[in-house]
Amino acid sequence: MAIQVSVCGPRDCTADDRGHAREVGRLLAGRGAVVICGGYTGVMAEVAAGAAAAGGTVVGVLSRADREGAGPDLTIAIATGIGEARNSVIVNSGDAVIVIGGSWGTLSELALAKRRGGVPVVQLGGWRIVDAAGDVVPGLRYADTPAEALARTGLWD
Amino acid sequence: MAIQVSVCGPRDCTADDRGHAREVGRLLAGRGAVVICGGYTGVMAEVAAGAAAAGGTVVGVLSRADREGAGPDLTIAIATGIGEARNSVIVNSGDAVIVIGGSWGTLSELALAKRRGGVPVVQLGGWRIVDAAGDVVPGLRYADTPAEALARTGLWD
Amino acid sequence: MAIQVSVCGPRDCTADDRGHAREVGRLLAGRGAVVICGGYTGVMAEVAAGAAAAGGTVVGVLSRADREGAGPDLTIAIATGIGEARNSVIVNSGDAVIVIGGSWGTLSELALAKRRGGVPVVQLGGWRIVDAAGDVVPGLRYADTPAEALARTGLWD
Amino acid sequence: MAIQVSVCGPRDCTADDRGHAREVGRLLAGRGAVVICGGYTGVMAEVAAGAAAAGGTVVGVLSRADREGAGPDLTIAIATGIGEARNSVIVNSGDAVIVIGGSWGTLSELALAKRRGGVPVVQLGGWRIVDAAGDVVPGLRYADTPAEALARTGLWD
Repeated sequence: MAIQVSVCGPRDCTADDRGHAREVGRLLAGRGAVVICGGYTGVMAEVAAGAAAAGGTVVGVLSRADREGAGPDLTIAIATGIGEARNSVIVNSGDAVIVIGGSWGTLSELALAKRRGGVPVVQLGGWRIVDAAGDVVPGLRYADTPAEALARTGLWD
Repeated sequence: MAIQVSVCGPRDCTADDRGHAREVGRLLAGRGAVVICGGYTGVMAEVAAGAAAAGGTVVGVLSRADREGAGPDLTIAIATGIGEARNSVIVNSGDAVIVIGGSWGTLSELALAKRRGGVPVVQLGGWRIVDAAGDVVPGLRYADTPAEALARTGLWD
Repeated sequence: MAIQVSVCGPRDCTADDRGHAREVGRLLAGRGAVVICGGYTGVMAEVAAGAAAAGGTVVGVLSRADREGAGPDLTIAIATGIGEARNSVIVNSGDAVIVIGGSWGTLSELALAKRRGGVPVVQLGGWRIVDAAGDVVPGLRYADTPAEALARTGLWD
Repeated sequence: MAIQVSVCGPRDCTADDRGHAREVGRLLAGRGAVVICGGYTGVMAEVAAGAAAAGGTVVGVLSRADREGAGPDLTIAIATGIGEARNSVIVNSGDAVIVIGGSWGTLSELALAKRRGGVPVVQLGGWRIVDAAGDVVPGLRYADTPAEALARTGLWD
């Protein structure tokens, strides 16, 4: 089975997030990794587009019980029908999780990925989590570029 | 996106079920359809083996939150972590559902597929459901052979 | 913790099913058991009404992510948001499962209850499951009246 | 139906979190609100203990498919069997969500509650979420005491 990488990010994202997502998709496809994502718009659509353009495989793990609203670049659509509970399905299915940009849904995926444990979680942009003392909560890996995001997963060391 | 067909069946199955599942997998791959299955042993493993041998794509929608016990012929593994609730994910993701053999888990998938509605559900072997008067409950399509099972989905009419 | 009994049945049910459901609810409340049900109309509403009228506690495990359409007699509503996958939540939460009437959704609950194993599953009316030889598949308990349904759970032996 | 309040927090929590959780449970029971929680140890056990001691009703929405490990103070246990995906069930079921303390699982509940939208989310202790500029991401309500946490839900204004 190929390496699977879950890529999470907002529907409503910045131009930077879009560019990052597309490039992450392209690079993952180039490595032969399967992209697992949420299957709709924004970061999800961009990572799918990037991977598809590079000949890669993209699985959209949809919240809906049908494929309505699913992006055009998915290779496979899993219509979970379990709503936002599907966020845990996305992060459970990756050998690594790359998080691009910030939103509440995206934060839930980041947190569920860390709750799962045992898998690298890399952030590219987005929000930071700090404790009561103002210190960043440890456990996440940070990247400034798509290439660095892949490198920091450690999957190809 | 390719046609997706969900194939359901028992872990503990008959020799006939095994043969049917392998051939259904082979035929679906030959048609370019993606196979969605439960990803473990028995009918799930056979349909995956049949599809993989014919160069097809097989998605295992696992009950576990990791890939432990996942079959060797899966192209992609979705580690849902939602237990038997994943049965509804399997049947929601197909353009048709083919049910091979009988077990309680398999029956739940058949019933969830009919509950979903709007999608052909074809049975190859397995159990029958009758009402209080002893009449077969309508709504299912029956097939005696793998080729007939594909034909009765109507997907390639 | 009180005994919990899951009661499953169709939205669209017969007059007999309605009467059975209301009486099962009343009897369960009289025994001090918590009723777990799907929380909407038909058998779900009747069992809730029967239990509520007798001062019992009823939990509606809803498919929706909000309480829209939830019945008026629920004590507590769990808004799962996981669609029909919530059927497995209902049957996992009972010390016994009582199934009243027949529908595809109801059949999925019966089958998931048997797939779970280790818990009595009692049918009052509804469909029968037969194997290829036409013999009833073993493992279910049958009752003709609400009182018999409770008795056949064995919970109060 | 009574008001339902979801209370989330870590298994491994601080002494302050424990005290806060027990008092939040006591206060919610005093208001007649049903407490919805994760049903295991730490903050979950304390809020259940506080509510139970005050005669309240506590629902444990368990990740497991059985009641193993469920706390002793639950009134009702919902054995979802859907793993951490049950976090979305917890937050969907509350008229408000109170988050006590910080952990990755807890953060996922906070984020899912905000993703759901339309429901007050109050934090008592725990982590903070900041954007790239270091500013706190808006949308959460903060409290320093259990009484203030209830007040800030606005449910009893």
